[in-house]
Amino acid sequence: MTNNYYMPTKVIMGDDCVVKNCELFKVLGRKALIVTGTQSAKRNGSEKDVKTALESVGIQYQVFDKVMSNPTISCAYEGASLAKENGVDFIIAIGGGSPMDAGKAIALLAAQDIEEESLFLGNYQNKVLPMAFVPTTAGTGSEVTQYSILTNDKAQTKTSIASDLLFPTVTFLDAKYTVHLGVTTTINTAIDALSHAVEGMLSVKASIVSDALAAASIQMIIDCTPKMLLALQAGSEAAFDLEQREQLLQASFMAGMVIAQTGTTVVHAMGYSLTYFKGIDHGRANGLLLGEYLKLVEKAQPDLAAKILKTMSFAKAEQLLELLGKLLGQREEINAEEIKFYSKKAIQTKNIANCIVKPTEDDLRTMFVQSFAK
Amino acid sequence: MTNNYYMPTKVIMGDDCVVKNCELFKVLGRKALIVTGTQSAKRNGSEKDVKTALESVGIQYQVFDKVMSNPTISCAYEGASLAKENGVDFIIAIGGGSPMDAGKAIALLAAQDIEEESLFLGNYQNKVLPMAFVPTTAGTGSEVTQYSILTNDKAQTKTSIASDLLFPTVTFLDAKYTVHLGVTTTINTAIDALSHAVEGMLSVKASIVSDALAAASIQMIIDCTPKMLLALQAGSEAAFDLEQREQLLQASFMAGMVIAQTGTTVVHAMGYSLTYFKGIDHGRANGLLLGEYLKLVEKAQPDLAAKILKTMSFAKAEQLLELLGKLLGQREEINAEEIKFYSKKAIQTKNIANCIVKPTEDDLRTMFVQSFAK
Repeated sequence: MTNNYYMPTKVIMGDDCVVKNCELFKVLGRKALIVTGTQSAKRNGSEKDVKTALESVGIQYQVFDKVMSNPTISCAYEGASLAKENGVDFIIAIGGGSPMDAGKAIALLAAQDIEEESLFLGNYQNKVLPMAFVPTTAGTGSEVTQYSILTNDKAQTKTSIASDLLFPTVTFLDAKYTVHLGVTTTINTAIDALSHAVEGMLSVKASIVSDALAAASIQMIIDCTPKMLLALQAGSEAAFDLEQREQLLQASFMAGMVIAQTGTTVVHAMGYSLTYFKGIDHGRANGLLLGEYLKLVEKAQPDLAAKILKTMSFAKAEQLLELLGKLLGQREEINAEEIKFYSKKAIQTKNIANCIVKPTEDDLRTMFVQSFAK
Repeated sequence: MTNNYYMPTKVIMGDDCVVKNCELFKVLGRKALIVTGTQSAKRNGSEKDVKTALESVGIQYQVFDKVMSNPTISCAYEGASLAKENGVDFIIAIGGGSPMDAGKAIALLAAQDIEEESLFLGNYQNKVLPMAFVPTTAGTGSEVTQYSILTNDKAQTKTSIASDLLFPTVTFLDAKYTVHLGVTTTINTAIDALSHAVEGMLSVKASIVSDALAAASIQMIIDCTPKMLLALQAGSEAAFDLEQREQLLQASFMAGMVIAQTGTTVVHAMGYSLTYFKGIDHGRANGLLLGEYLKLVEKAQPDLAAKILKTMSFAKAEQLLELLGKLLGQREEINAEEIKFYSKKAIQTKNIANCIVKPTEDDLRTMFVQSFAK
């Protein structure tokens, strides 16, 4: 397990950490572009805190609050144009994975001219705007990764820009912004983080460090699942207290550190089709597939599966499947043609080579069938 | 546990990683100062590999191979003068903690003028030469920390320069340079790493991330202790195979990541006197004190001690004391006056405030007495 390690983002944690650490923004420049979605950053107080922090240290800002779920390439170009027009020095992204991933692409495109056809090719100049990130969901891990995942209509999927340039300079983790997330969003994002940690342990790039972080992250998420089931029953996010919100935010950040080292596996590759073609939420898409993949691993490499299951205090992949089944509820419909098409797409991705247990196209079809049969 | 996280060093691992990744040196500049000790880097092949890598990418270099054990302030100034005279762009440190700690101070002093009396005050300009590190022992963790620890004759102790400027840019971990380390050095450095990981879990700055890394690191080191006892019996380092060398190097790097977040505790503060006044090796000094401190913690906060002992598969601090007793063998002599003096020094350090369980000066005296009574 002699894989490399790199994650240079400074992570600041705790209640009111954005305002308390306003001096950190000064290092990044004198004018910022705030990249966010249309609503949630306004509702959960994060945008207000960022503005308070910026104003207290005399930093000017412009707001680009047009980032949609699963942001498109054109959204990134639009934000970059605004950044260039206004001569901003740095980017502040606030929100879930969508504003953060868009923020990274904007930081890159504002610092150098890249044609759309070269955007995913990776040979960038060593130039990017500095970034400060404020995640307001606990799942994506984007706040500590080098990936920006954009909806790519030409390729009919989500495609990653992966570059060390895209690590944010600083990330602020304050669980209070996640307190009012609804039950479904809380569960889906937590499952996304769980999937990152588990997939990290299933990656050929797994290392001693990534495994240690993944194991801790998995334990922390599984530890919150009884409360998730209660919240589902009660139909209210009030089941989660601030301590669990903090635990989920930290677990998600750690799982982000994991995939920054390992990348993701076939689970993400398959899930992208479910999101692109069927509009299934990203975390949910991973959750639908994760247990089935672990079952495949259990057959091919029982020791590897057992190592992961042990972190959940489970003996069999079937137990994870059961838990995910309860958390995910009623499945969507999927037909044979869709399964065939999605499997063909997923088997061609680089994610397959990243798997310790490499599935065949047949395996992918079986996984899709099983995932939606519940 | 909402403590911050930061460790920006890129860590490259594996057999021949220095030569295989020679391109990474090019990013750092065109002329390097190699900082190392007088002998070991020449014997273990690391200096040769670094030179081969530099020559293959056309980087000029100068060698400063005068770093002694527990390097002095004047050694750092001497290296910095050489760096400035030769207009080097970056520093390469090769060796154990001594050349690495000296290398950091040299990188700082070559980039800015700092008077000796201001050296430990911390208000530096934002300037430092980039650094590439090649550790050749498995203990110090300096390759991934922001600390440079120098022998400070005015203060009659070892004193830290602590600054985020001092994180190396890149670190190369190749266990083959550690293969010929003697039994005593192997054990002392491993105990140093163990102490870092344990002290990290005993620090008020412990976080979810540092605890996860510490637990993994402790497990890996304890897992190698049966081989250490065999090596002691056999009087030969041949008892360790490359796999254990790799495991110890990785555990040491992870323990370094831990103290980069947490700092050290009273164990290091007390140990510095043993090294400064009695010439006891740094890792051994920590080992002499670590078990006694954990016993104190066990009384004051049994749950905290149990959490740490669990990573060792131990139930009682006494078991760690026994193991360390076997590894450390015959103790040095220490008299009552020395104990009084060292305790007074240690209780005044910042390390005390960094302990979750804060010892009194009396506690320190008792720890010294017990440590040397074996």
